[in-house]
Amino acid sequence: MNNGFFGQDIISVRQFSPEKLTYIFGVADEMETLVRRFGSADMLSGKVLANLFYEPSTRTASSFMAAMVRLGGRVIPINEVHYSSVSKGESLPDTIRTLECYADIIVLRHPEVGAAQIAADYAAKPIINAGDGIGEHPTQALLDLYTIRKELGRLDGLKVAMVGDLKYGRTVHSLTRLLSRYNTEFYFVSPPILRLPEDMVAEVKARGLKAVEVEDVHEVISDVDVLYVTRVQKERFSDLALYDQVKDYYTVDPELMKMAKPKMALMHPLPRVGEISYAVDQDPRAAYFRQMENGMFIRMALLAAVLGKA
Amino acid sequence: MNNGFFGQDIISVRQFSPEKLTYIFGVADEMETLVRRFGSADMLSGKVLANLFYEPSTRTASSFMAAMVRLGGRVIPINEVHYSSVSKGESLPDTIRTLECYADIIVLRHPEVGAAQIAADYAAKPIINAGDGIGEHPTQALLDLYTIRKELGRLDGLKVAMVGDLKYGRTVHSLTRLLSRYNTEFYFVSPPILRLPEDMVAEVKARGLKAVEVEDVHEVISDVDVLYVTRVQKERFSDLALYDQVKDYYTVDPELMKMAKPKMALMHPLPRVGEISYAVDQDPRAAYFRQMENGMFIRMALLAAVLGKA
Amino acid sequence: MNNGFFGQDIISVRQFSPEKLTYIFGVADEMETLVRRFGSADMLSGKVLANLFYEPSTRTASSFMAAMVRLGGRVIPINEVHYSSVSKGESLPDTIRTLECYADIIVLRHPEVGAAQIAADYAAKPIINAGDGIGEHPTQALLDLYTIRKELGRLDGLKVAMVGDLKYGRTVHSLTRLLSRYNTEFYFVSPPILRLPEDMVAEVKARGLKAVEVEDVHEVISDVDVLYVTRVQKERFSDLALYDQVKDYYTVDPELMKMAKPKMALMHPLPRVGEISYAVDQDPRAAYFRQMENGMFIRMALLAAVLGKA
Repeated sequence: MNNGFFGQDIISVRQFSPEKLTYIFGVADEMETLVRRFGSADMLSGKVLANLFYEPSTRTASSFMAAMVRLGGRVIPINEVHYSSVSKGESLPDTIRTLECYADIIVLRHPEVGAAQIAADYAAKPIINAGDGIGEHPTQALLDLYTIRKELGRLDGLKVAMVGDLKYGRTVHSLTRLLSRYNTEFYFVSPPILRLPEDMVAEVKARGLKAVEVEDVHEVISDVDVLYVTRVQKERFSDLALYDQVKDYYTVDPELMKMAKPKMALMHPLPRVGEISYAVDQDPRAAYFRQMENGMFIRMALLAAVLGKA
Repeated sequence: MNNGFFGQDIISVRQFSPEKLTYIFGVADEMETLVRRFGSADMLSGKVLANLFYEPSTRTASSFMAAMVRLGGRVIPINEVHYSSVSKGESLPDTIRTLECYADIIVLRHPEVGAAQIAADYAAKPIINAGDGIGEHPTQALLDLYTIRKELGRLDGLKVAMVGDLKYGRTVHSLTRLLSRYNTEFYFVSPPILRLPEDMVAEVKARGLKAVEVEDVHEVISDVDVLYVTRVQKERFSDLALYDQVKDYYTVDPELMKMAKPKMALMHPLPRVGEISYAVDQDPRAAYFRQMENGMFIRMALLAAVLGKA
Repeated sequence: MNNGFFGQDIISVRQFSPEKLTYIFGVADEMETLVRRFGSADMLSGKVLANLFYEPSTRTASSFMAAMVRLGGRVIPINEVHYSSVSKGESLPDTIRTLECYADIIVLRHPEVGAAQIAADYAAKPIINAGDGIGEHPTQALLDLYTIRKELGRLDGLKVAMVGDLKYGRTVHSLTRLLSRYNTEFYFVSPPILRLPEDMVAEVKARGLKAVEVEDVHEVISDVDVLYVTRVQKERFSDLALYDQVKDYYTVDPELMKMAKPKMALMHPLPRVGEISYAVDQDPRAAYFRQMENGMFIRMALLAAVLGKA
């Protein structure tokens, strides 16, 4: 159990050294084997997870639930927090300290930045951050990195384009941070109003990495190993004419994919609403559903590691 | 596992040949024995069911959950779809393809006709239709037929009255379709504006079966082996005076039951809101709560069969 | 299984003789040992609990779920009753009789007084009352009494102050009723408009017990063995100036705790919204989070006893 995870909180990707990433990815590989061969295991039999979601996220909540039950554990789903004791005015620390009376580990999704750290400060039992506002969503970043490694066989020296809303997308921020540890060439593809925050661009460049900002995905499509697409939300634009003007710069369809390398990974954290056309789904480079499945393996690995069983 | 169900979707009652019905009813009988003696089994240990409900249905959702856990499986309940990733605009196919990354089988309730078939077209894993709008609700029809067989000991040559809203009631349509394969005499009892659709009446008659349409349940009560009652919803009437005028034609009380055969089955898919008075509940012919329980046995049988364990 | 609980409903604290309390507290002690050593057990393997909540209560719902799964049982959570078959107009008795087709035991939270008894009248399977409006919440009262016994080592001859809203707080009423069986000295601390109902004061005095009513917690703090604090809800006051004037009489902070005995128990059913300051949480006499945990042990004990496994 000297894996560095036992009993620890998982709050930020900053906690993950390359060694820890390698360790978790190795366990995730084993989890995939386990699921393919046996479906489930008894590793976490007797353990209880409180799945505490202050905002809805079917995808992330289901993924953690599946991860826990496939390891033999049990889940207490708490999804209606918006109208439960919280609406009576209870504080997050009190809710957390109550739930840790019942559960062995708490997964927390909360709309406010820093909520997961506050929870961890008060809880004696481990907290896993499942997204805190525009803050972090570390398991998403881990599954993204894990998917890149699986799809392309390596993490070093890749050309990665981040596409869409780079300003508010915490997914993009966390993954960029993780990829910065490897010898990555970055292409940031977005409309001007949704560019990556300047300090993040600076952070990347400070590591001596290439970081090119462009507005049209066509400029980079033929060069990249990874095309990581996110939604460009209409609501971000005060001028809808501007939105209509730029939105096609960020749409992936079979025509665009013809220009891409034969071996590359097209990724998306989902849900998508038009950024990637359905016609691309059958393309072997379309990795987004494998990405989802990898999310379950990564979460299985983390749950097992934090609870001392991996 | 050569039962014809392994890995298959359950979308429509049209899939069920008499042989398949006999097979599933036999497995359901075994499931009842299992529950009475042991409560649960380990048959589906390690399997995960995603219970995806786009509209609320406590009864059906609970029945599938109970069926799965009594076979040792696990359930991921997804009830709040109205405000989760769907509200961010995700399509049904994407939601389904995400959930099949986590689960071994998906039960789907959706307000739109054809939704279950769309889900099945996109999913590699089996889909069970738990109701798609005014389309089908095959497990309800199966449990209804199974209940008739258990209550009366046979399916052939029965006189069956369908009562209430025969126009919109998918329950009535599916059960009528199933019963048409047996030598059934049908009585369709409804107000004129809620009559069975003409094509369904024609379908029944085309099989050479008797199909009598009447407006008052008193005309048929003394003849029938099965009285299948459904709700007459006030909202269907633009003229409420008309509603008040007819609603008693379709209410079952102890007085009415005095006219019924000593051996017959009074059924209702529930919930009821006055169509059957509480005073009838103690009548041994009142089969509606046994009908509920049969629903769990039928769903256990289907889950086991589709997942290759029956 | 001759424990007096097997197959019984748990509706009211009035059902609990001192012998039954002793029995359940003994089982709860064993449950704590079980959880500390093994996390979970298989005692209720194969059993299914329907957790039916007509109003939200994260705390109570989670506690019952955890209790059930830590004994190896399964839970069907039904939280969205406000918009499910109930909204189609189904009655409580019908919902209960449907759920008992699927489950072995039903936990019911309902906003109306008497709902649990109605459910029990219709159900063949055991019902546990998890709160029926301003009626009873017996498992809360049991966990409160159990906590007092654990914190202070005895139940006889204690000085207990009930603080806050004594008029509407069902928690206070049930606990007062239970403590009346022991040689308790009561202090009822509340603003005049939220005093304990006269009949309850009379009930206590009729047993020959001391019952003193005061308005300021400072008058009693140095004498009591138990300070049981509840919320004083702003909404109870038509005159908010009055609220502001009295609210500090009922707030517990480190200054107040300096006046308390070195060995005493500060309790609260939670959620709190200011009645006990966070600065008190580290005080060893602050028992409210242990109280939460005891709730799980008590519920484990009751579930096991009612289902014939303790």
